[in-house]
Amino acid sequence: MTYAPGRCARIRIVKQIFVIGIGAGDPDHLTLQAVRAIARTEVFFLLDKGEEKADLVRLREDILREHAAPSHRVVVARDPERDLRTSTPGYAPAVDDWRQRRAEVYERLIADEVRGDGTGAFLVWGDPALYDSTLGILDEVRARGRAAFERTVVPGVSSVSALAARHRIGLNQVGRAVQITTGRRLADGGWPDGVDDVVVMLDAHRTFGRFTGRGLHIYWGAYLGTPDEILLSGPLDDGLAERIAVVRAEARERKGWIMDTYLLRRGIPA
Amino acid sequence: MTYAPGRCARIRIVKQIFVIGIGAGDPDHLTLQAVRAIARTEVFFLLDKGEEKADLVRLREDILREHAAPSHRVVVARDPERDLRTSTPGYAPAVDDWRQRRAEVYERLIADEVRGDGTGAFLVWGDPALYDSTLGILDEVRARGRAAFERTVVPGVSSVSALAARHRIGLNQVGRAVQITTGRRLADGGWPDGVDDVVVMLDAHRTFGRFTGRGLHIYWGAYLGTPDEILLSGPLDDGLAERIAVVRAEARERKGWIMDTYLLRRGIPA
Repeated sequence: MTYAPGRCARIRIVKQIFVIGIGAGDPDHLTLQAVRAIARTEVFFLLDKGEEKADLVRLREDILREHAAPSHRVVVARDPERDLRTSTPGYAPAVDDWRQRRAEVYERLIADEVRGDGTGAFLVWGDPALYDSTLGILDEVRARGRAAFERTVVPGVSSVSALAARHRIGLNQVGRAVQITTGRRLADGGWPDGVDDVVVMLDAHRTFGRFTGRGLHIYWGAYLGTPDEILLSGPLDDGLAERIAVVRAEARERKGWIMDTYLLRRGIPA
Repeated sequence: MTYAPGRCARIRIVKQIFVIGIGAGDPDHLTLQAVRAIARTEVFFLLDKGEEKADLVRLREDILREHAAPSHRVVVARDPERDLRTSTPGYAPAVDDWRQRRAEVYERLIADEVRGDGTGAFLVWGDPALYDSTLGILDEVRARGRAAFERTVVPGVSSVSALAARHRIGLNQVGRAVQITTGRRLADGGWPDGVDDVVVMLDAHRTFGRFTGRGLHIYWGAYLGTPDEILLSGPLDDGLAERIAVVRAEARERKGWIMDTYLLRRGIPA
């Protein structure tokens, strides 16, 4: 790395950590910035969550084979599991402890596996800004102060953008707001006030099924961007909620996992 | 274009229209999918809104020079202006009329400028799914039924993703919702219920200034992804709201235009 003397009086030798959004599943979602960052990276960190889907692992390997430097290394670390026994009664302390343990793992990877002025990278599905923990953990690592590094975040095509593109729709209606939320929050909080469009992520419980009888439209997608992509859309009533539940269960059974996202829209005339 | 016989019994000759998200301003935000779509496009439609910023025009020209086929054509059409005289008293009819006039322009472009099985493209800053009218107008053109075409939407890095990446933050807090809205809606409707994070787009009136005294954080960015990018962040109180207003006014004065986006965040301990 070179620094223009006029811009920086002291030469700093520092580790560079990339957090790279690699898109929702289609390797062509990679941006040119992501391609360049991957090509510059010496060591990639893969956090094994113990539930990694073989298809996603393969997609990521394809991306590295195509774009990473021949000399790149891949270091796999075990991502600490959340202790489910303690997470119900004492939710916050369990999460805190889990965050600490994850920060320790990331800290060790950066300290031990990246040389003095080297580059490491975490690859994130979709966009690192949406429902991903990598940036938060790196903040934690910086706060602990034992590993010095600079971060560059490479934005990616989120599954939300991919969903909208595949259905050829906007996320918002003219001049209106859109809310992005989780299945759990939508189930707990109900339909948010003042919003006609709600994008739901991380929904394992088919929360859309609770919103029938209100004239909503749904735009649903699973395995977005991959060869297994499934898209369904239309009025949520008249059986579509049930149909998506069946299609979802069958796909999950067939592939062993599912990742899906959807937009619920109010205000489309029947 | 070739069709596998097993997949499609009847050969269909149809115009292909791409709506391509080209990212928030950095040419490296282009995805590989966008690069390929641009390379395949025969004619690009540029809608002259009469207020086009010279910098953005230049950026778009750079993208075409680098990625479009040598034989590509660019057709510039005048985007009908909204009639501001009628838009205050009779807002809805004026918008309807304006949409119709825009649909006519787009219909004519597709009918006259794209040959039978050719490809045309609209380039959209950011992601076509967020606060952009292109997809809505093409729906209108299809509904009129006089131009037959297929649409492919290429998702892009939105200014929202770019903002988060440059500030190295997530848009949502753990398990929480995020709302994306306009300056006008936030001003009219106030802080939305049940949300700690609000992204504001299209805000010409520095609406963040109405939300001081609540302990909010702001992450603000202007000209995101371009060499003129400005980033400011911190607690909104203690003068930052005023400072952003000053920086924004100066930048706008200097460049003749401004495009900015920001996230307002609740819940960061002081």
